[in-house]
Amino acid sequence: MANSKFEYVRDFEQTDSLLPNTWIVVRVDGRAFTKMCAKYEFEKPNDRRALDLMNAAAKAVVSDLPEVTISYGVSDEYSFVFHKSCNLFERRASKLVSTIVSTFTANYVFSWSTYFPGTPLSFPLPTFDGRAVCYPGVQNLRDYLSWRQVDCHINNLYNTTFWALIQLGGLGNKDAEKTLAGTLASDKNEILFSRFHINYNNEPEMFRKGSVIFRDYELVDPKSHRVADEMDDLAEPTQQSKSQADKDKKRRLKARVVVEHLDIIKDDFWDRRPWILSNKPGKVPKEP
Amino acid sequence: MANSKFEYVRDFEQTDSLLPNTWIVVRVDGRAFTKMCAKYEFEKPNDRRALDLMNAAAKAVVSDLPEVTISYGVSDEYSFVFHKSCNLFERRASKLVSTIVSTFTANYVFSWSTYFPGTPLSFPLPTFDGRAVCYPGVQNLRDYLSWRQVDCHINNLYNTTFWALIQLGGLGNKDAEKTLAGTLASDKNEILFSRFHINYNNEPEMFRKGSVIFRDYELVDPKSHRVADEMDDLAEPTQQSKSQADKDKKRRLKARVVVEHLDIIKDDFWDRRPWILSNKPGKVPKEP
Amino acid sequence: MANSKFEYVRDFEQTDSLLPNTWIVVRVDGRAFTKMCAKYEFEKPNDRRALDLMNAAAKAVVSDLPEVTISYGVSDEYSFVFHKSCNLFERRASKLVSTIVSTFTANYVFSWSTYFPGTPLSFPLPTFDGRAVCYPGVQNLRDYLSWRQVDCHINNLYNTTFWALIQLGGLGNKDAEKTLAGTLASDKNEILFSRFHINYNNEPEMFRKGSVIFRDYELVDPKSHRVADEMDDLAEPTQQSKSQADKDKKRRLKARVVVEHLDIIKDDFWDRRPWILSNKPGKVPKEP
Amino acid sequence: MANSKFEYVRDFEQTDSLLPNTWIVVRVDGRAFTKMCAKYEFEKPNDRRALDLMNAAAKAVVSDLPEVTISYGVSDEYSFVFHKSCNLFERRASKLVSTIVSTFTANYVFSWSTYFPGTPLSFPLPTFDGRAVCYPGVQNLRDYLSWRQVDCHINNLYNTTFWALIQLGGLGNKDAEKTLAGTLASDKNEILFSRFHINYNNEPEMFRKGSVIFRDYELVDPKSHRVADEMDDLAEPTQQSKSQADKDKKRRLKARVVVEHLDIIKDDFWDRRPWILSNKPGKVPKEP
Repeated sequence: MANSKFEYVRDFEQTDSLLPNTWIVVRVDGRAFTKMCAKYEFEKPNDRRALDLMNAAAKAVVSDLPEVTISYGVSDEYSFVFHKSCNLFERRASKLVSTIVSTFTANYVFSWSTYFPGTPLSFPLPTFDGRAVCYPGVQNLRDYLSWRQVDCHINNLYNTTFWALIQLGGLGNKDAEKTLAGTLASDKNEILFSRFHINYNNEPEMFRKGSVIFRDYELVDPKSHRVADEMDDLAEPTQQSKSQADKDKKRRLKARVVVEHLDIIKDDFWDRRPWILSNKPGKVPKEP
Repeated sequence: MANSKFEYVRDFEQTDSLLPNTWIVVRVDGRAFTKMCAKYEFEKPNDRRALDLMNAAAKAVVSDLPEVTISYGVSDEYSFVFHKSCNLFERRASKLVSTIVSTFTANYVFSWSTYFPGTPLSFPLPTFDGRAVCYPGVQNLRDYLSWRQVDCHINNLYNTTFWALIQLGGLGNKDAEKTLAGTLASDKNEILFSRFHINYNNEPEMFRKGSVIFRDYELVDPKSHRVADEMDDLAEPTQQSKSQADKDKKRRLKARVVVEHLDIIKDDFWDRRPWILSNKPGKVPKEP
Repeated sequence: MANSKFEYVRDFEQTDSLLPNTWIVVRVDGRAFTKMCAKYEFEKPNDRRALDLMNAAAKAVVSDLPEVTISYGVSDEYSFVFHKSCNLFERRASKLVSTIVSTFTANYVFSWSTYFPGTPLSFPLPTFDGRAVCYPGVQNLRDYLSWRQVDCHINNLYNTTFWALIQLGGLGNKDAEKTLAGTLASDKNEILFSRFHINYNNEPEMFRKGSVIFRDYELVDPKSHRVADEMDDLAEPTQQSKSQADKDKKRRLKARVVVEHLDIIKDDFWDRRPWILSNKPGKVPKEP
Repeated sequence: MANSKFEYVRDFEQTDSLLPNTWIVVRVDGRAFTKMCAKYEFEKPNDRRALDLMNAAAKAVVSDLPEVTISYGVSDEYSFVFHKSCNLFERRASKLVSTIVSTFTANYVFSWSTYFPGTPLSFPLPTFDGRAVCYPGVQNLRDYLSWRQVDCHINNLYNTTFWALIQLGGLGNKDAEKTLAGTLASDKNEILFSRFHINYNNEPEMFRKGSVIFRDYELVDPKSHRVADEMDDLAEPTQQSKSQADKDKKRRLKARVVVEHLDIIKDDFWDRRPWILSNKPGKVPKEP
């Protein structure tokens, strides 16, 4: 039996390749996580186990997909960045998004019991959605990541103060909301310090800065190069020689994938880790 | 700290809404499942546990997303159909695809131990990718599903014969391939019967026809209506009254989601289950 | 000198093929026609020369592109419909839109002096923009055309009354606007009749109904067929035999392209001209 | 009569906004110009009147749309570049393409009689199609333009030699083709020189280099700046103050739009005209 009679239906598939020479960001978001938080009694304002689980899932994505050059997560969301020269899946949006979302979800569900040993999952299971966005310039990409990290800061400062007012100050939700209405960052810092003796800057860095995942090589002297400029000058996805590509691959496999909680808004982070924007693996540090 | 300086990056998100009044098919495919089959020693040509797990994951998707009107699966792939009047997530392709893929993956990983009790999962975990395709006419949609079911038949007949030659006939892979090169369906049926006393038509229906998942209501007399025509006549996503929508929702929740192994190429399947194309829930059958 | 070094730039072109098996409407709109009207002193509320010129340009488009099955125009806009089985330019949106807009513009500028013999064109020249929209069902397509014709009616009744109040009633623009604020169609008919003895139904049909362009064949008995249903049942772009396609082509070339001013909202227009929706040329009427 | 019943058809329009912060190239191509050349007896290998007419039409486009920063034309094609910060028509592809194609066509048809005074146009009229492509980096854009200019060179050298063999050498088409099969640029130069005493480098620059159109300001010292780098560093469409925008507009209106025949592959062209990539108008040269 030939299948030719029905095969015309393939013509309805439409290509969704993303513009070449642009940075691709795939952002994954938890679906209905407010309900999830309530159902599994996540701690407020931050549940360390939940964040560690998110980080474990994201780390698995970065490990499985070496094309991801950097990843940033906060709360129930994670952004994965493909280098602008990346040609994985011919840059098809649905392939890239679904692969990342599937890998993330698989690891989240699989590792749940490690981080919530006494709390078995039940239906409906935790799930995530995703989308891809292209950024033409290095500065656009860094602004995207800065946007997410500033958001992390704003939300965490608010939530920390809000839950301090409730958990330590004995206020109800509405009164806590009223207390914070119209306050500036400095006001919230003041409330935390004067009422609860909390110095916000001593809060865990993971809560204040979110998590950034990348392959780790030896840090370089930030003055020795101008990666961002070089990257924008790079017109065409670089054609590497086969042997160079193999060398790079080996180095990448040797590199540790690390989860850190660093400022990625300032230049310093990027200047010391040129491999993130250049996509050329750095020097693998010697074992101590 | 205001976030306005970086917020411009949101303008780079591009809408990917699918054309209204078309049937949306989201197909999910196993990634690198040839490796998976080897790693977990799936039985050849069909591993019932693996298919049951696929069906369980797909059933969970249909249960969680009542907007899915029918679903068809074979091997490591599953297609989910949204009714052409569906407006879920404003029909954004990435939202629809990622939600389905994530829900499918979560359930596949979570239920693995139920179907493979002695075989724990290990990294890298099983994952799936997905894509969305629009079909304007009822006939296009049915042709798509027929295409998948014919493919199931062609592949399963081939694989059944191929593995019979190896497992029962003692041939090597290459010799089995050679034996089948250029054979018609009738030749394969003959090989199975004459050499191995296998009547292909007695093979399990799940293997021969794949699996179809839908909400179950009382079957109707196929002569009483012309659903397909009515559906194509339906120009505009029907605006239901609020009370009608609530009634429909309740009925849908009462309906059992079933996994069957039926011919979905012929009219009979569709004529007896008009609710699949009409999106109007049928009569819930009385409990026996 | 080889050109290979730069040829990679072709990879940045992204396909924009429109979904198969859907009706394609390309609508052309005059750019800055309010200024145009003032500059060339178009008569108010309708300038017959300007409308005749629009019709001439549109007729040339329909003649040059036999794939256009029907076209409808009003004021400074014109919509061109490609049959859902049409595969012209592989259905690429930019090719279809730019070709129609260019052909329309070329004919508008070329024929200007025929319709405005005493009024030479000057810079900046009249120009048009365009866009393509897909409609999956026959009913969607007819609703689109009805939408444009209802718009024609609403605007023309308003404009006719508005300019009667000014030109015959001696009102200023603001007073005319005030007079019409909140009025119903019946009120406007009444104003026209009681104040100016104008029976709106006696206004020229071109003004009240706009213009519809199509290939003309012998009218058929409307009861003899159900074209719309057949069209929606048609799943796959029909593969004609070469000889049938040639016959159709010859018949189409023999058919006159006509400009009429008919009601295209009611069924009658479509039932008597089944070739418009079926894309099968009708009988060429004998010369009188 | 309200139009609400049909207005739902507007939901079928899909947005086609091009990615922000990328250079937009709209290329216009003559449709069926081989036929056109034959019909109006264009001179071979280059018809100066036809090229002058192309240039006149393109110059009108650049004059009418100040958002076009540079334009390059050869044979029957013209490319128009919008600066990456341009937000004209919210960057909708169909609006940009159709407006350019319409303006180009209108001027081509209108100015025909100026360049072909003895040769009236006849139906079907000359028309053009168009498409838009995005280029993320300055280097991508320059490579695109280089690609077109190299193409101009390759084709013109071939055509010049081909027609010399025919017009001066008395060869038939086939023999001329055979003579040129497999020849390098140097071979063609040699044929021209040794057989026909033609020094290719003395051929008109318009034929050898094509035509480039831009607003003209005072040339600057190429060493004084690095525009390309600055442009790629520019992340966000610059928000100008209202007064600065007005100043820029005035300067642009004062600037002459010029048609030149220059090398746009080497840096020199760009370095001396920084306003093309920076989109900041230069100094208007004093009248002599």
